[in-house]
Amino acid sequence: MSYFVNKEQDLPLQEVFPGIQGRLIHTKLTTVADFSIAAGTVLPTHHHPHEQTSTILSGQFLFVVGAEERLLQAGEVAVIPGNVPHSGTALTDCRIIDVFSPVREDYRI
Amino acid sequence: MSYFVNKEQDLPLQEVFPGIQGRLIHTKLTTVADFSIAAGTVLPTHHHPHEQTSTILSGQFLFVVGAEERLLQAGEVAVIPGNVPHSGTALTDCRIIDVFSPVREDYRI
Repeated sequence: MSYFVNKEQDLPLQEVFPGIQGRLIHTKLTTVADFSIAAGTVLPTHHHPHEQTSTILSGQFLFVVGAEERLLQAGEVAVIPGNVPHSGTALTDCRIIDVFSPVREDYRI
Repeated sequence: MSYFVNKEQDLPLQEVFPGIQGRLIHTKLTTVADFSIAAGTVLPTHHHPHEQTSTILSGQFLFVVGAEERLLQAGEVAVIPGNVPHSGTALTDCRIIDVFSPVREDYRI
């Protein structure tokens, strides 16, 4: 197995939630996901034991984490500890790099 | 402390190696770094116990990982397990998101 990945050629496009499609890399300790989120997508409040660090590359995404709400855009990041409830709304098409640890076994295919 | 980070406003710019500057977020389990690498930077072979997943956002970066070499560009990723030697050369200015796990304590300031 190569150390190098071409995301479009080597990884399947997964729809993890209606409106959220991405390509995911699972290492031993992390999952690194490159997600495209369609404008208008509403992700309801949920939580998981995994930490999540969401780096906005493009678009505008309204994040609610715990009791905090902020409209994030390129250059901004949501840092979500394990088990903290969060939700979000894509105000435009968005591209977000999500880093999870430990691995999102539920996203393996 | 907020769950949200504006990288330019909230994080110091660190030079982790001559020619490699970035802003780093440390969570409990990971370090997520947004690095700008100047064209011509040569990173000598090194290794560390942390896993590293390097997502190229722009530019061309020649990576050597173990015995493999590949010129990476946007859409490509190097997935480096812990303790595997790696090196690289920036052929152009590059922007790379590096994910480390566990945390890069040596990069804390």
